[in-house]
Amino acid sequence: MSSLKLLKEKAPLVICITNDVVKNFTANGLVALGASPAMSEFKDDLEDLLKYAGGLLINIGTLTNDNWQLYRDALIIAEKYNVPAVLDPVACGASAYRKRVVDDLLENYKISAIRGNAGEIGSLVGLDIASKGVDSANVDNIGELALIANKKYNIPIVVTGEVDAIAVAGEVITIHNGSSMMPKVIGTGCLLGAVVASFIGLDKDNVFKSLETSLLAYNIAGEFAEKRPNGHLPGTYKVEFINSLYEVTDGDISLHKKVKNYV
Amino acid sequence: MSSLKLLKEKAPLVICITNDVVKNFTANGLVALGASPAMSEFKDDLEDLLKYAGGLLINIGTLTNDNWQLYRDALIIAEKYNVPAVLDPVACGASAYRKRVVDDLLENYKISAIRGNAGEIGSLVGLDIASKGVDSANVDNIGELALIANKKYNIPIVVTGEVDAIAVAGEVITIHNGSSMMPKVIGTGCLLGAVVASFIGLDKDNVFKSLETSLLAYNIAGEFAEKRPNGHLPGTYKVEFINSLYEVTDGDISLHKKVKNYV
Amino acid sequence: MSSLKLLKEKAPLVICITNDVVKNFTANGLVALGASPAMSEFKDDLEDLLKYAGGLLINIGTLTNDNWQLYRDALIIAEKYNVPAVLDPVACGASAYRKRVVDDLLENYKISAIRGNAGEIGSLVGLDIASKGVDSANVDNIGELALIANKKYNIPIVVTGEVDAIAVAGEVITIHNGSSMMPKVIGTGCLLGAVVASFIGLDKDNVFKSLETSLLAYNIAGEFAEKRPNGHLPGTYKVEFINSLYEVTDGDISLHKKVKNYV
Repeated sequence: MSSLKLLKEKAPLVICITNDVVKNFTANGLVALGASPAMSEFKDDLEDLLKYAGGLLINIGTLTNDNWQLYRDALIIAEKYNVPAVLDPVACGASAYRKRVVDDLLENYKISAIRGNAGEIGSLVGLDIASKGVDSANVDNIGELALIANKKYNIPIVVTGEVDAIAVAGEVITIHNGSSMMPKVIGTGCLLGAVVASFIGLDKDNVFKSLETSLLAYNIAGEFAEKRPNGHLPGTYKVEFINSLYEVTDGDISLHKKVKNYV
Repeated sequence: MSSLKLLKEKAPLVICITNDVVKNFTANGLVALGASPAMSEFKDDLEDLLKYAGGLLINIGTLTNDNWQLYRDALIIAEKYNVPAVLDPVACGASAYRKRVVDDLLENYKISAIRGNAGEIGSLVGLDIASKGVDSANVDNIGELALIANKKYNIPIVVTGEVDAIAVAGEVITIHNGSSMMPKVIGTGCLLGAVVASFIGLDKDNVFKSLETSLLAYNIAGEFAEKRPNGHLPGTYKVEFINSLYEVTDGDISLHKKVKNYV
Repeated sequence: MSSLKLLKEKAPLVICITNDVVKNFTANGLVALGASPAMSEFKDDLEDLLKYAGGLLINIGTLTNDNWQLYRDALIIAEKYNVPAVLDPVACGASAYRKRVVDDLLENYKISAIRGNAGEIGSLVGLDIASKGVDSANVDNIGELALIANKKYNIPIVVTGEVDAIAVAGEVITIHNGSSMMPKVIGTGCLLGAVVASFIGLDKDNVFKSLETSLLAYNIAGEFAEKRPNGHLPGTYKVEFINSLYEVTDGDISLHKKVKNYV
């Protein structure tokens, strides 16, 4: 069964610890795709809920010391119940404090995958992306970046931008779908982190395929949204993107996917 | 005067202590109907604002120990100013911690009504809804569930799902309006809790009628939203639901209501 | 270059410390106009990010003692990096606690502008607006109110309502654009505070002109949104308002502006 069908059938509970700006959009996006999001923000509650979960998202968007402790608590509980955790290291390249938190989580806790943009992933592996002129449109570098991070942390890496890359166990693909309207809606990157957390635990023998499907479903929904009436305007695009996440099928993915192997 | 007209005329201030995921949707939904929402999250501020309020909502969606204390503070102040408080015990059936908090609030503070789904209300009265096969489509059981909770707590109970039930002082009705799109938008249940908090204090001699009107207005707006162009898609449905809450009238309620007495 | 073009060219980072209800709408509104919003809520993080920022917004909507301390920390850091800070004193006329916080911020920290409605600005200058029958439709009084506050605090004042006023260094204009749908969408006032924070630092030699442009762009976008299909309904209006903020141009402002000098 395809990962997308599996998602809709299992409707996994996905615990999202994410920033205040995107909670609603994240929850609506996951429901549209077929997952069951829950936002939980307290140790005792996480202990009760994570045992039923298929995935955990840690998004550090609105970071505080209290939230840092919450991430640690959640990661310990997730590991206990064998729930895969996805880290979204928001703006870790722009703030020394964010970098310190992300380094702590990656060194001392079990993280199953990272989702970030080129600047964030570059910061994790010690590359100053901005100064080297690597941007998300540069296919070769995006693939290489994903591979470097995959080798450093030994977990699946998703780098997103105009072109996306997935690296799992040394294997890398780039994905060339998506819409230039996506960055004009706040939280499209954050929602993708939650989508990755929804797919990653569906089929533990086939993580690469699940991640590929998650990004293709997401990006192709993004393309459909832009083609709707007024889809070139950000207010309408946001509405149509949720509509498209609800409608996108495996057939759409087969028809529209643009995937390249990165060698 | 009908409760809906009374709401629009009085535009009561409704203090919503609710979860981070649905604050914006809740506030926009209340404004669309005609109430005046305010989100306040601190004792000193609640002391200043609750004296002017027509209702208080306590929704435990994003529960923490700090929020637990905030709920207690708010309930004490609401009682002092005679402001009716509605409790939405989100997911209290899924988490022992949530159940403990809800039990504390119901035993030790003045709550004027509870709004929950069948699983939540079942958990409050000690029925394991899932294991007994009671679901929201089962009209008889929903009515019975509302009645059991009403007798246990001696306050109005609203149980919502595919069919809704209202129980006040031993009297029970079921409401058969609504749309299957409602659960596809995050926060439709939470917003209904806030709507109940907006209506409950409008006419203290006629609480049953006010609650009935609130649920009918809500559900019939939900039906209208589904009938709009692209109303079968969740992004559009969310927008059209706010539009419909703004437009729904007493005439619509009279024409479309499906209410049964539960004996 | 016009302020609007300058905004789109510079895409200034605007740090928004704002209430939980409107964070998403605020961020999407700023992106639509052309600014780069970031919500940051912790001293160490603010220290890292504010040095790159073009503006800081402090909106006290969901006020707590912890947030009060956060506002102080942020204002001290903003002053250090010479980042102009805009204060939105939400509901300071309705709560003694809110008034106390706002007075502290205005007396002890560097604030570069205030954006509020007539009731809020009236409360700051000791006028009980409700009891004096001043409302936002009363052009003369709005201008006078802005002027009184401008003289008291010696910083630019923006008073918004059905008619808006801007007072800078004793000079006052009133703006007669906008839509009656704006108050039916939660956060239109809060977003305007963030818009003011986006424009205020663009051209320090021409603050008056920048503020005028920000209010005109905002209000004329509001007019356009109402004219779109179903723009008279609040769900649709919210979507179309974001669309219009994205589309509004200097040409639109020239064509539609209704500005009067207040003498």
